[in-house]
Formats: sequence, C-alpha cells, structure tokens
Amino acid sequence: MKKIINATPQAFEIDTDHTALWVIDVQPDFFERGGFADVGQGLDVRWLQPILPGIRELVELARSSGIRVIFTREAYRPDLRDVPEPWLRAPEHSRIGSQGRDNNGKWRFLIDGERGTELIIQTKPEDIIIRKASKDAFVRPFIENRRTDLRKKLSQLGLRQFLFTGATSGVCGSSTISRSSDEGFESGIIKDLMADYDHGIHAAAMKNAGGRDQKWPWISACLTTADAVKRALAARS
Amino acid sequence: MKKIINATPQAFEIDTDHTALWVIDVQPDFFERGGFADVGQGLDVRWLQPILPGIRELVELARSSGIRVIFTREAYRPDLRDVPEPWLRAPEHSRIGSQGRDNNGKWRFLIDGERGTELIIQTKPEDIIIRKASKDAFVRPFIENRRTDLRKKLSQLGLRQFLFTGATSGVCGSSTISRSSDEGFESGIIKDLMADYDHGIHAAAMKNAGGRDQKWPWISACLTTADAVKRALAARS
Amino acid sequence: MKKIINATPQAFEIDTDHTALWVIDVQPDFFERGGFADVGQGLDVRWLQPILPGIRELVELARSSGIRVIFTREAYRPDLRDVPEPWLRAPEHSRIGSQGRDNNGKWRFLIDGERGTELIIQTKPEDIIIRKASKDAFVRPFIENRRTDLRKKLSQLGLRQFLFTGATSGVCGSSTISRSSDEGFESGIIKDLMADYDHGIHAAAMKNAGGRDQKWPWISACLTTADAVKRALAARS
Amino acid sequence: MKKIINATPQAFEIDTDHTALWVIDVQPDFFERGGFADVGQGLDVRWLQPILPGIRELVELARSSGIRVIFTREAYRPDLRDVPEPWLRAPEHSRIGSQGRDNNGKWRFLIDGERGTELIIQTKPEDIIIRKASKDAFVRPFIENRRTDLRKKLSQLGLRQFLFTGATSGVCGSSTISRSSDEGFESGIIKDLMADYDHGIHAAAMKNAGGRDQKWPWISACLTTADAVKRALAARS
Repeated sequence: MKKIINATPQAFEIDTDHTALWVIDVQPDFFERGGFADVGQGLDVRWLQPILPGIRELVELARSSGIRVIFTREAYRPDLRDVPEPWLRAPEHSRIGSQGRDNNGKWRFLIDGERGTELIIQTKPEDIIIRKASKDAFVRPFIENRRTDLRKKLSQLGLRQFLFTGATSGVCGSSTISRSSDEGFESGIIKDLMADYDHGIHAAAMKNAGGRDQKWPWISACLTTADAVKRALAARS
Repeated sequence: MKKIINATPQAFEIDTDHTALWVIDVQPDFFERGGFADVGQGLDVRWLQPILPGIRELVELARSSGIRVIFTREAYRPDLRDVPEPWLRAPEHSRIGSQGRDNNGKWRFLIDGERGTELIIQTKPEDIIIRKASKDAFVRPFIENRRTDLRKKLSQLGLRQFLFTGATSGVCGSSTISRSSDEGFESGIIKDLMADYDHGIHAAAMKNAGGRDQKWPWISACLTTADAVKRALAARS
Repeated sequence: MKKIINATPQAFEIDTDHTALWVIDVQPDFFERGGFADVGQGLDVRWLQPILPGIRELVELARSSGIRVIFTREAYRPDLRDVPEPWLRAPEHSRIGSQGRDNNGKWRFLIDGERGTELIIQTKPEDIIIRKASKDAFVRPFIENRRTDLRKKLSQLGLRQFLFTGATSGVCGSSTISRSSDEGFESGIIKDLMADYDHGIHAAAMKNAGGRDQKWPWISACLTTADAVKRALAARS
Repeated sequence: MKKIINATPQAFEIDTDHTALWVIDVQPDFFERGGFADVGQGLDVRWLQPILPGIRELVELARSSGIRVIFTREAYRPDLRDVPEPWLRAPEHSRIGSQGRDNNGKWRFLIDGERGTELIIQTKPEDIIIRKASKDAFVRPFIENRRTDLRKKLSQLGLRQFLFTGATSGVCGSSTISRSSDEGFESGIIKDLMADYDHGIHAAAMKNAGGRDQKWPWISACLTTADAVKRALAARS
C-alpha cells in the first residue's frame, strides 16, 4: 500500500509491501549500564535511552501495517575469528570480547550468545534478524548463522525502502544508511528515534544523511519523525 | 620503513611499504565553481579550497618517501548505467549527468570523461587511480575501466594502512574511512587536509572517525595533521 | 576550603567559600511537556530530562559542602513590560505570555507567577534566586523583585567562581557563562549536567565555552563532570 | 529606506536609516599568521580568510546605501589594566600582551596600538569604531578612548537593527549577537561572511543565533547571506 510520509527535503512516498522498519543495534552493549559502551568505552548511556519507548511503539505499528521489521545486532563469534585484526589491539578494557567490570550482569563485550548482544525489543518470527560482525551491516552480515549477501537478500525479499531507527547515529547508523543509498535503496531516517552518545555527532549524522538542507537528499535519504510516520500509516490511502 | 606519526588518541605507527596516502575526490565537480557542488547543489566551494596546497605538498612528499598514492574520483558512465536508480530521480538541475549552467566551462556533472571528474592534482604512473560509481570507494570501484574487488586489490598491493585527505569529510570521506576499518585496514585521518561544505558535518566527521575523544579509536582511525606527518617522514627511524 | 576538580584543559582549583553552584533555568517552561519549549516552540523536552537527577544530587552536595547555590529562572512580568519589544512580534503561539494548548496544566509562557517559571528543584532560604528578563542573567536580573547589578551583587557576596549546570546549553547557558568570563569570574562547566534540545548546539556550546581543545580555556571556563566534582568535594584537602 | 532581505526563518525587513552593518574583530590577531590566534592559540587562520573579500564588498555597498558601518576590534590597554584578572593567568605563550614568536611582524597580542589590533579593512570617518576589552562588545566598549554605554550610544545614533559579519562565530560573534537581542535590537546574521577556526562551533553558532530551524528566531536574529543582502539593497523599494 502506498503511504506518503511528511519529510525533508521532500515527502517520502513508500509502498508498505516493499518497505522495512530497520532497528539498528538496540542491545545492552550499547544501551545499558555495565556493557561495552558504558564500561568499555566510558560513554554515557543516558543519551540513548529516550528513544526506546518510541521505537517499541513503531515496531508494533509497523507489524500491524504490513511493514517488515529488520533488527541488526553487532555480535562477534566467541572465538573472535570474525573481528578485524586491528580491533583486537585495542586496550584490554575496551576490547571486543573483554568482560564488563560492573555488578549488574557480567558479560563479554559484543559477543554472540552473551547478554550484551541480545535484542532489547521482543522479536517475532517474521522479523528479519541480522547478526553483523561489522559496523556497516552490509559488510559481514549473518542470517541464521549463515554469511549473507545482504543487498541480494533484501532485494529478494522485495525490499526497496527503509525507515531507520536505533543507534548509534554516527557509527553503525551512518555507515549502514549511506551504504543503503550506494546499493540503490531509498531511506527515511526517523530522526527522533536515533541517538548517539556524542550530541554533535548525532546532529551532524542526521543532517548529513538527511540531505544537508539541500533540495534533494544527497545520499537518498529523507529526514522524518515518529509522528510523521504514525500519521502516514494511519491515513487511508 | 617504520615511522611514528603523532596522532590522537594514540600515535599511528606506519610501515611506509604498506601505507598509502589516499586523496579523495579532488576534482572540479566538488572543488570548483561551475560544477556539481556549486551549480547543481548550491554548495559553497570556498570551504574546500584551503586544503589543496597542503594536499599537493603531501602527495610530493609521499612519493619521495616511498608511500603509494591512491586517488579516487567519483565519475559515472556517460550512459548513466552505473548510477543507482533512485539518484536519477533527483531534480533535473542537481542530477548526475545534468549540465552546469555557468560560463566558466560547461560539463555534465560527475560524468567520466568530462572536465568535472578529472583529477585536479597531477598523477604519476605509479599512483593507484580509482574511478568509483559510489560514495564509499569499496562499493563500485573501477581500475583501468575494470570493476575491482577493492579490498582484495589493495591487499594484493601489500597495503594495510591509509592516510586520508580530500573531500567531502561527511560523504565520500566518512563512508570510505569507516569501510576501510570494517575491512581490516588501519587509518590516520589528516584532519587539516580534509574539508566539507558544511562546517558542522566536517567537525563531527573528523571526531567520529578519529576516536571521539576515547582512549582507542572506535573505528580504527587516528586523527593527525599535515605537520605531524611531515615531521614523522623527515625523522630518521 | 580549597578543592581541586579534575577538568580540561586544566584542573579547576576552587575555594568553596567563594564558589557557587549555578543552576540555570530548571523550570517547567523548558523541561516539561505543555510549556513554552514543547508547545510554543515545538522542541523535544526528552533531551533535557536526563540531567535532572544529577543536578538534584549536586545541589544537595553543594549545600552540605558550604558551596552557595544560585538558581536563575527566566520569567517576565505579567504585563510584559520587561520583554524586549521585538520579541513581542513573535507568532502568537510561540510568544512570551501566550498560553499552552495542552491539557496537563495550562500556564502563560515564561510569566512570573505562573507554573512554567517555578523552579523544579526545591530551594532553601540561603540560596540565591534570580529572576531574569533576559537570556544572559547579567542583563536584566531581579533579586526579591528588585533590579540588581549582578556583577556587583555576586562580588559583594564574596563569589568569584561558578560551577554551571542547567539549560539550555546554547542560549541561556552560553550567554551567561561567556558573560561571567567577561566580568572576571572563573567557571567550571559540568558538561553532563547541561543540556539542549538541539544536540549539535549542546556539543558545540560545551566545547566553545570549555576551551576548544586548547591549552588554556579561551573564555575562562573549564569542562568538568558531575563525578569529578563529587570526587573533589569528597577529598580531604 | 525600507528593504526586505530574504532570510530564515522569515524575511528581515530593515530600514536603512536605522540599520548598521557590523564587522566583528577583522584584525590581524585573529585573521593572520603570526598573531594571537595562530601563534598564541595554535588555531588555523586558513578558515577565516575566505570571508574577507565578501566583507569588503558589503562594506562598500553598505556605505553607498546609507547603512552605517560598525567595526569592533578587541584590544586591551598596553598596561593590561582592562584585562579581566583570571585571563592574565593564561600560560605565557597564549596570554594577552605576550609577543608573537614568528618572523612576519612581531607584535604584542591583542594590545591597542600594536599591529595585531589594527583593522584589516579601511575605515571611513563616518564609521563607528569600537575598541572593546571584552568578548561581548557591550561589556567594556570604548569609542574614541572613552568608556561607553553601548546600548544607549547605538540607540542615540538611531540604530535599531544590525547585519552581522566577522569573527569568530563562537566567541565574539555569539556573545555580541545574543546580547544585542537581549538589549532589544534586531539582527540578521550574514552566515557566509562569518567564520570560526572550529567548524563545528561555527555551524552551531549560526544555527543557534539564527533560530534553530524554528518558526521564529528565538534570540531575534535571522540568518541571511551576502547575496540576499545585495539583492535586497539593489531592489527599488
């Protein structure tokens, strides 16, 4: 079904049959105390948490509107074989695979099967769940433990358009949104449902991906809001 | 030869035999009046020009120090067959393949063979020159008109480390730097030799790619300066 | 008592007898739904709320450490006589003195005596409470309904140093912090207890006021954190 | 004469009889190598220089259009008596009154009578030239060596509206623009004729002062461009 979402620099016309709501890396290692961001990197997780209620609500709405939901989670093999080698030279306390020093639940950072890489939002069997051993989800994605050509897979599923939410705006967000454009997909970024520990990086990432105040979105993404998506999906078309 | 470049969050130790200086998209369509950025997008090219003298100087220095030079240029086939389909729906005046409306040299925007995609800096036969039909150089790169697996190609040439310069920080810069990290390369970003029309996006891109004030560069890139690179290359090791 | 607070670009040595903790504009019109920011300006108050618990805690700690607490609140006379004339030409819905359109508590925006300008944090008789009819607290401040020369008043109270918290970083925060420096006071900015609706403006305001990565804080303010202040006050000197 | 300047968030209607073009701190200490910014602070003056040709052009145009020109310059007494005391505790090399270490012209930083505080642009007798011993021009301004109440003085001259240019966006620019609003003046900011060493601070300062994408400029300033001002002044009214 066609829906027109109010957006800048221009409205984003989606076809719900070919659109997915993409939830990037909503996992304890990025959103909760005791995990990779908080303990390993010293980042302030308070600034990610305000987006969770809105994402949950939109996930429900997408499902009831016939829009597929994609969840990515950054998670590496316990033997670290799919971690790029230079990343393993990080200082011990901030390295993938190191262990949180906190009381509220110990887990190895960003490791598949550990609590830090579980999804915070309840998934459904029809959702597309991607483990990725990379920032950009297209670089080393796995579906059901099998390495996948993500561009091809998403195309085969009939997807052509994405609505992005999640974290962090500057790293996994920016790289995946930009890559989606390079791969020929169109995107809307739900800017009040994305977040980053660094406020300046969040603001710039939204502006950069969303067209930079130009007449046309340079990297094929529009900027929209949760309210605009809700209004569009509620409208009869 | 090993050289240690002063950088944040930590020094960048390079081996000149395995390092390339990477010059991103130094071409009239982005740097000069009359081209894609100026005429097509309404962007202010004054803010890119201050980095050119420093890049020229560093290219000379790299060559005389045994460091390979990589040039990328964004350029599409004249028949537009390698342009992602949604990009062709941009408004006519800002579209790839449209023509500048200016007097000082007309050319079709971002088209291979036209003046806007020629390199502004003189190349040498030993340089690596990549045409790319994408923002991220790893997505659709061509060397001598042949589609290339860039990760494989650069590895075969013995390259493991990059020093990045050029434009724009937020689009082709950020995506290529981030991807290099995901692909297992290490990078230093020469922050005073990168630029963007949008000041906030430039600043955030440098901070984001260069480690975000953290103890270790999250996406395996250090931030350095032209002076620091010159001092490192001049030092006996 | 002398205390040394860990800060950038250098430690901030305070004398608790001459220092005040300054809480900027923690009032419903800026922090809550239904007020000036939310209803009148369409700003997203979610991004201010995470700093409230930390400010409350630090206010308690300041009092028990012999540090004065200053609260400012932006509030204009009900007859609007102290509003700069051009501000009264704002569109009706976003004008000082207009009324919220929301259900959860109606009040006139930024008017003294209305709910939107009450302080959210409980004050004590020994606190310094300043009503201001301006962004920069030094321009039109009132103490106990009397217009005050704030530089002189704070000096007479023996104050020479401030620790800033509150909102918004870019408007009332930046102008008051900068002015404090021009007036000869020294400041520390508790960066994780300040906030702004616009993430890019918050980040830039903190960097700008806090020394811009230079060796010395250009406008006489250091950047510190709630934890650093707590550790300094807990240390025996 | 009434003129309507295209601007955001709304057009800026000026009366040329009551408007001044304000040029902030265009002086060697901020714009040239060898001065306070370059030698004393380690800042990169390349990023200020692109705005000079446009400011010169607009100064000429203002004069021929009957618009007054205000120049401020930051300059302290040679005996340093009007420098706020904490600023004198800066490290020696970056302190007001220290001497450049460079060959191309030695001068004491930010001292009245020295080369670093002379105006780069030629003034005319009818211009208003303000020495200020502060960031915010309203704090410690001097006209013809006499301390001045700037709000009163500018009002007496019939001025009610300003068009701002110059540097730096984040420090002397932001504080003076914000203060002008608090004092009841209206302003337009010519965003492509302001600059800052720090790109992120420049971008945020323009957005913050210019209305933050809101419907009405929160601190009574509009954002405009040199071209828009030129078109407005050229139009018959």
